[in-house]
Amino acid sequence: MAHDIRPAAPGDIPLILEFIRGLAEYEGLLDRVETTPERLRASLFPADGAPVAHCVIGSIDGVAAGFALYYFNFSTFLGRLSLYLEDLYVKPEFRGHGLGKALLVHLARLANTRGCGRMEWAVLDWNAPAIAFYEALGAKRLREWQLCRLDGTDLEKFGQV
Amino acid sequence: MAHDIRPAAPGDIPLILEFIRGLAEYEGLLDRVETTPERLRASLFPADGAPVAHCVIGSIDGVAAGFALYYFNFSTFLGRLSLYLEDLYVKPEFRGHGLGKALLVHLARLANTRGCGRMEWAVLDWNAPAIAFYEALGAKRLREWQLCRLDGTDLEKFGQV
Repeated sequence: MAHDIRPAAPGDIPLILEFIRGLAEYEGLLDRVETTPERLRASLFPADGAPVAHCVIGSIDGVAAGFALYYFNFSTFLGRLSLYLEDLYVKPEFRGHGLGKALLVHLARLANTRGCGRMEWAVLDWNAPAIAFYEALGAKRLREWQLCRLDGTDLEKFGQV
Repeated sequence: MAHDIRPAAPGDIPLILEFIRGLAEYEGLLDRVETTPERLRASLFPADGAPVAHCVIGSIDGVAAGFALYYFNFSTFLGRLSLYLEDLYVKPEFRGHGLGKALLVHLARLANTRGCGRMEWAVLDWNAPAIAFYEALGAKRLREWQLCRLDGTDLEKFGQV
């Protein structure tokens, strides 16, 4: 099975939305998906040429089968860029052919090229197949760090104190 | 006690480094601090005018007492920017006067102005005072999400597969 990984183009927006919904459905979070084609386009392909996030499409034997969406952030301790993987998804019928790993290797190469000190992402603690997959690739789980969030009306109100 | 919060300037680099080291020492991670004044300057005050991260300095009665370092990233599900708080620190002798909360409110206001759907940060699971502080402010802990990381030589090797 031949893999191909290429940067996403504006014409891929419907496909990317399909992948985002597929991932959200798997995570039981489909009701949280509020994004729209317009928002995705503005973020990935803005008129000012400065995207806030980037996307690559992975294909198997010429059929688009999955994607990775990522951005660069920053580690204060290292004083270096980090690559943060926001989404990684391979459609169920295309799993087990190495495309997920190929997408991660592609991003690791990119992180190295850009001088990043780290590549990070988040996984749901009940997602045992994903956790086993990431650990088999040598990733560490940062068990001692917990994410905190303020959002929606909580965030709006807090900013008005 | 009068608070003041202002954007950091290039002349604050030594102060910011002192805060980063203070935070790392509190977290038991001082040996992980590899950043340098040059790296901080390049990230916060780059010649191209496009910083990868931003910093504000908080003062109490005119004395610099803490800082917040943050950047904007992206939520795919929302299709909106997020504000990510990388570091928040108030020097021990200045705690208990509300500067930490004032820094968070400042960032929440900024997040709202920029149209962010979320503001997020990470906390160490043993840091009970910080967790209590964040929960009292209405933040949610995302207990089901775990961070994964590839770094150092693991990242370099993985990108060479």
